[in-house]
Amino acid sequence: MAKITSVSPLAPAAFPNLPVIDGVRFATAEAGVRYQGRTDVMLAMLDPGSVVTGVFTRSATRSANVLDCQKKIGTDSDAGAAIIVNSGNSNAFTGRAGEGSVDAISEAVAAKTGLPANRVFTSSTGVIGERLPHDRIIAKIDDLVGALDAGKIAPAAKAIMTTDTFPKGACAEVEVDGKTVRIAGMAKGSGMIAPDMATMLVYVFTDAKIGRADLQAIVSDAADKTFNCITVDSDTSTSDTLLMGATGASGADVTGNAAFAQAVHDVFLDLAHQVVKDGEGATKFVEITVTGAATDADARTHAMAIANSPLVKTAIAGEDPNWGRIVMAIGKSGAAADRDLLSIRFGDIVVAEKGWVSAEYREAQGAAIMKQQEIPITVDLGLGTGQATVWTCDLTHGYISINADYRS
Amino acid sequence: MAKITSVSPLAPAAFPNLPVIDGVRFATAEAGVRYQGRTDVMLAMLDPGSVVTGVFTRSATRSANVLDCQKKIGTDSDAGAAIIVNSGNSNAFTGRAGEGSVDAISEAVAAKTGLPANRVFTSSTGVIGERLPHDRIIAKIDDLVGALDAGKIAPAAKAIMTTDTFPKGACAEVEVDGKTVRIAGMAKGSGMIAPDMATMLVYVFTDAKIGRADLQAIVSDAADKTFNCITVDSDTSTSDTLLMGATGASGADVTGNAAFAQAVHDVFLDLAHQVVKDGEGATKFVEITVTGAATDADARTHAMAIANSPLVKTAIAGEDPNWGRIVMAIGKSGAAADRDLLSIRFGDIVVAEKGWVSAEYREAQGAAIMKQQEIPITVDLGLGTGQATVWTCDLTHGYISINADYRS
Repeated sequence: MAKITSVSPLAPAAFPNLPVIDGVRFATAEAGVRYQGRTDVMLAMLDPGSVVTGVFTRSATRSANVLDCQKKIGTDSDAGAAIIVNSGNSNAFTGRAGEGSVDAISEAVAAKTGLPANRVFTSSTGVIGERLPHDRIIAKIDDLVGALDAGKIAPAAKAIMTTDTFPKGACAEVEVDGKTVRIAGMAKGSGMIAPDMATMLVYVFTDAKIGRADLQAIVSDAADKTFNCITVDSDTSTSDTLLMGATGASGADVTGNAAFAQAVHDVFLDLAHQVVKDGEGATKFVEITVTGAATDADARTHAMAIANSPLVKTAIAGEDPNWGRIVMAIGKSGAAADRDLLSIRFGDIVVAEKGWVSAEYREAQGAAIMKQQEIPITVDLGLGTGQATVWTCDLTHGYISINADYRS
Repeated sequence: MAKITSVSPLAPAAFPNLPVIDGVRFATAEAGVRYQGRTDVMLAMLDPGSVVTGVFTRSATRSANVLDCQKKIGTDSDAGAAIIVNSGNSNAFTGRAGEGSVDAISEAVAAKTGLPANRVFTSSTGVIGERLPHDRIIAKIDDLVGALDAGKIAPAAKAIMTTDTFPKGACAEVEVDGKTVRIAGMAKGSGMIAPDMATMLVYVFTDAKIGRADLQAIVSDAADKTFNCITVDSDTSTSDTLLMGATGASGADVTGNAAFAQAVHDVFLDLAHQVVKDGEGATKFVEITVTGAATDADARTHAMAIANSPLVKTAIAGEDPNWGRIVMAIGKSGAAADRDLLSIRFGDIVVAEKGWVSAEYREAQGAAIMKQQEIPITVDLGLGTGQATVWTCDLTHGYISINADYRS
């Protein structure tokens, strides 16, 4: 793979200080799946009584691990659970051999931990179409189980990175009935990032007490508004997986608690934004809001057409307030639009209104916004009340450099 | 705009030697619409008795010129016709002022040529959202009309270029009832090229005798199989226009003549391929064929998902036989696919079959194909008889360089 020599200019100053989630422990190992000299396997163990929920890619060519997780996720169990993740190889498009690798890893973890194999969730991320050397992972399971530690979420976030230039973590706390509920999670993702699925690898944990179906509803809704609203390159991964586990260790029942659902949303959004900020080659973080659409779905279609347009993304890379390309993207999106009702803003600056450039607009104003590291773009369609916000990054030489030499 | 300093490595050796089409004359001028020191206006005059047909972008934000052509194209007239095209400014998203520019140019050409204004077809290509300085064009109409010459199609093809690195022409001849029917055409296009419309600016002429409705049917069908099957960057222009005029001067009636329809298709395909070969930053010409799909529409969806995938296109730029990214693109396309029935070929090399890499495949074989300038990729889905072929180019640093500094 391409050597990533520098951290994204959009990276947070530091990895956040994530709280311990009672009932979850982490360990990492150097299994040498593909990378040498770095950790590439992460094990998370959830205590008995935990519930596990998830959201997955809808790709028709999804990986053996995703298919296996989807089989296992819908059942209740008091046995606890394990999540084991490797980077360097996605185990996607590896046919029956890929399924065999998932089973072998699941059974090996089950044997060492006493869990039933259907409580072991696996993820793999990296190159597509090469057989996963699962023996290298299995050889490390003893070490991993022996090293489990509630304080090791930060190294876990590092072990799952591929082309990421920084590890991604986020957390939140909510007071419920006088008790503190904690949420902490990690994500990886940088390229092959597009919506319409769970997106990337994301693992979030909480000590809240909540039933599986209730947590799943919160997770699905929050994923739809966060991870499903980001795009780096319009390419949907074969491995996208989001797993969220709740241990119940806080003793605080969050069933029906809106503040908890909001906190889950906030943690997801933070992680989703970090993925965009680590978009391959990214130098700008772009928030695109579409209002006044005929429907929310139309607003999303327009916003994603703008966010995925190579011409819009290269203009932003060049700090060029080329709003004509936004008009183009709206025109091609397929959703309803009326040229003569359109307005476009960069930040608070009205650039275009009623189908033409605003009389007050001066290019220097747009250029100033484009120089910012975070660029808000708003389009109002003037048709109805539908709206959507999505997040993306610019398209730069860095993206080409990283991806024209990823594998060979 | 970015300075294009070198001709595409995929360019043909020379502009073809296009035949004179009896009944059509061309002229060009330097109007200084945006560019200095080069021609930027082209006038084509068709003799009385000619029919004119067209296909246009379906963009919801299409230009004033496109809307005007669409109004004019569906009527019969014996008066002849004019086509006047400028480069440098697309007259798109210019509100009522844009419509005024189209009317002003149409009326000025009509006044000088004796045509009714509704027989003057206009196109504009270039930057979006800036008012067209139509007076500069109108000031050149006398010169243009005075310079009309049947032999000047080659300079006409040059005058309509924007980021194109070479002018694009193609021709064909068919014998009909002992008479020779000639077809000659030109195209411009390099970026903002995506299908689902007519695509770019294309002007094709023939001396065949044929009714408007019959010619329109041939043109629509051929455009669908050629221009609508190419993509450079998935971005659909606001100005895409294809006009085809038939003067009847050969005296050969081609109504219902399959060889003529085939020849029109061949000229369109040649021009479409030249547009891809002049794709911004292109170094590879890629033909993607999908077979065995449930329907032709599904095959096209898969083929376009591959052709538009930034990760596939950057892999090709890097001469990396990264077929896993093709699997990814099929998975995300939304059309039906079964991982375990998929096969992929690079040229004649079977890379993957039945959901996994072929046992005989060696990476050196794929790498050898990737070194070619023209790369054929075939995917068989194993589901049905649907098929489609589309054409694209790679995604390189050149595309970023051109588009991160187009306007400012």
